[in-house]
Amino acid sequence: MISLAEAQTRVLAGVAPLDAETVALTHAQGRVCAFGVAARLDQPPADVSAMDGYALRAADGAAGTRLRVIGGAPAGHPFEGVIGTGECVRIFTGGVVPAGADAILIQENAIAAAGGIEITEAVQPGRHIRRKGQDFATNGEIIAASTRLTPRHIALCASANHPWLTVRRRPRVAVLATGDEIALPGEPLPPGGIYGGNGPALCALAQSAGAETVLLPPILDDAAALTALVGSLGQFDILLTIGGASVGDHDLVQQALIEAGMKLDFWKIAMRPGKPLIFGRMGRQSVIGVPGNPVAALLCGALFLRPLIEAMQGIPPSPLPLEPARLGAPLGANDVRLDFLRATLSRDAAGLIATPLSRQDSAAQSDFARADALLVRAPLAPPAQVGDTVQVVRMREIGL
Amino acid sequence: MISLAEAQTRVLAGVAPLDAETVALTHAQGRVCAFGVAARLDQPPADVSAMDGYALRAADGAAGTRLRVIGGAPAGHPFEGVIGTGECVRIFTGGVVPAGADAILIQENAIAAAGGIEITEAVQPGRHIRRKGQDFATNGEIIAASTRLTPRHIALCASANHPWLTVRRRPRVAVLATGDEIALPGEPLPPGGIYGGNGPALCALAQSAGAETVLLPPILDDAAALTALVGSLGQFDILLTIGGASVGDHDLVQQALIEAGMKLDFWKIAMRPGKPLIFGRMGRQSVIGVPGNPVAALLCGALFLRPLIEAMQGIPPSPLPLEPARLGAPLGANDVRLDFLRATLSRDAAGLIATPLSRQDSAAQSDFARADALLVRAPLAPPAQVGDTVQVVRMREIGL
Repeated sequence: MISLAEAQTRVLAGVAPLDAETVALTHAQGRVCAFGVAARLDQPPADVSAMDGYALRAADGAAGTRLRVIGGAPAGHPFEGVIGTGECVRIFTGGVVPAGADAILIQENAIAAAGGIEITEAVQPGRHIRRKGQDFATNGEIIAASTRLTPRHIALCASANHPWLTVRRRPRVAVLATGDEIALPGEPLPPGGIYGGNGPALCALAQSAGAETVLLPPILDDAAALTALVGSLGQFDILLTIGGASVGDHDLVQQALIEAGMKLDFWKIAMRPGKPLIFGRMGRQSVIGVPGNPVAALLCGALFLRPLIEAMQGIPPSPLPLEPARLGAPLGANDVRLDFLRATLSRDAAGLIATPLSRQDSAAQSDFARADALLVRAPLAPPAQVGDTVQVVRMREIGL
Repeated sequence: MISLAEAQTRVLAGVAPLDAETVALTHAQGRVCAFGVAARLDQPPADVSAMDGYALRAADGAAGTRLRVIGGAPAGHPFEGVIGTGECVRIFTGGVVPAGADAILIQENAIAAAGGIEITEAVQPGRHIRRKGQDFATNGEIIAASTRLTPRHIALCASANHPWLTVRRRPRVAVLATGDEIALPGEPLPPGGIYGGNGPALCALAQSAGAETVLLPPILDDAAALTALVGSLGQFDILLTIGGASVGDHDLVQQALIEAGMKLDFWKIAMRPGKPLIFGRMGRQSVIGVPGNPVAALLCGALFLRPLIEAMQGIPPSPLPLEPARLGAPLGANDVRLDFLRATLSRDAAGLIATPLSRQDSAAQSDFARADALLVRAPLAPPAQVGDTVQVVRMREIGL
């Protein structure tokens, strides 16, 4: 058995970002920039007003001064002339500060007067002016490589005149569920069988991490058929198998994968749930075999598949996003395995409280579905009391 | 000016969830359940083993006892006979506990012996047996109405035999950017104009909240054309306009919306950025007009459009997901408006630290893009020192 940290490191070892592709700005959300993005212009493109008001010479800006209004400068319609002494130009937020002007009188501080306006409160030179290039300058990097794009980045790229963005292509993931006893919902149930949706659930998890998925038809526990099938999936970046990862007599997957040419890296991790995880490589393809238990399958998906999909998009590895919380119920000592307890979260004035569910059956899907977080217990952690500080990771933070 | 809380309440007042639609389980991620989902079977369907090992009568379970192995019970292949005294059946995780058996001997506690096995450690009656219906029972609710579906729910619904799910249809949002001076990237730039992508960015935000979006061609600042256009968009659940929400001479949007039949609810909120926000209704359509400033536009999208899209999917309103943090740089007193300062987050042993960016220009898109969170300051908050507790909301938590 190896540690989770070592297992995660091995899964990501030597994984290079996939090729780049070009997408329209309207399809860029959630994609990962292949390269840094540089601004194609200055923003603002010129000195502009940050307020609605009047542009004038600061020397004319004392309270009580009267000014003639010689034109207007709405956003998008610069005033072409030059502002002289005793003159001003009506200006609006985003309007270019006209030549000659070096101050903005906000409209709240102006009153109408014969032939123009009168200043009611003195201006400060330069105030309410956004300088050319203050937000970003031509050729300056506005987005770093490997950034996952949000609405803020989309707006920023648009303002910097990028209708297209170069992103990493989506990793292609083949998802293969095994096991004679599992039927997809709505299908005929084999005798003694159960319904299960690890395949669709892991596809959903992979998609939310940025992958394209193909859900393969479930395959019976037939070693030769399995070997032939997995050998024909070379066009996928990742092959994810579900089930058959443990050592029971009926677990053929590992054997079939090796038969098909997979170089096995490891297959046991000191964690619970999820101990029997297969990992290896078949040429450039990464192969992950998660256990058939639905809770373990999804947890392994979150801890191994998701970071792998991210790495293939160029996102650097990051530690598990742990948060401290106070324990809401006592816990016994832990054994040698890293333990992921299903827990609910609440908050009081002193902060976050994590309460492990009373039943920690790794087959309990309804408990898993209603948990907010995983409470992470180190190997050999001593008993813990209510109020002790523990580490949790929110389900949502790891795609669950 | 009204408070943010009042504005949010008014936007959601009287909003009913949209109609339901049926989607395949493989397309259910991120969708919101219209009704509670009930299990269609018991899980486990019978008492099953939680471990690989041997099923036997507890009365035969003392250490040193030898048992004959009379058959096997892998998952999906129940043993048809009855276990008698001195007998056991090889069983695997998920295998049905055969008739007559009431204990599981885990395989680590069995050694091969003449004609069968020998027990090396006594069994405990009932241990390692998952009881029929323990996870969920027929007709029991497994997912509550208004739950947004994650991979965990997809797996759970599959196990409960649901190939289809009934979810709220996606709200349809029309996004209309106004303003003569704004061009989409790659388009010809009008004289004095700037590039902008508020439309694509707000579409991305709306999509991530669950909406379908239509990005309308930008429209010039022409009151009659605007009125005619907005009057023709009745098929959308939400009309989102961008720009023209303030009181400058060149802001025609509010006027055009009212002309087209919108009942104005409010248009000024005591917050920064984002003060000039239009909200009203046109028949059953909700109309939100966000300011043209890209930072304010996205923030208003996150604070008003996003909750509205969620409400239309049946998600109950929730308060802003605030988290406490320690202040990383001093702040002056706040004025009468609720302030959303752009901040970066870091963490030390004592917890989260929020450091406001030194420049808080609401037009600074590059600063907005690199911020991790918004530091929320109450109206009239007094000056704050490094280390004081402040409230933050992570960008990611509100779709930014």
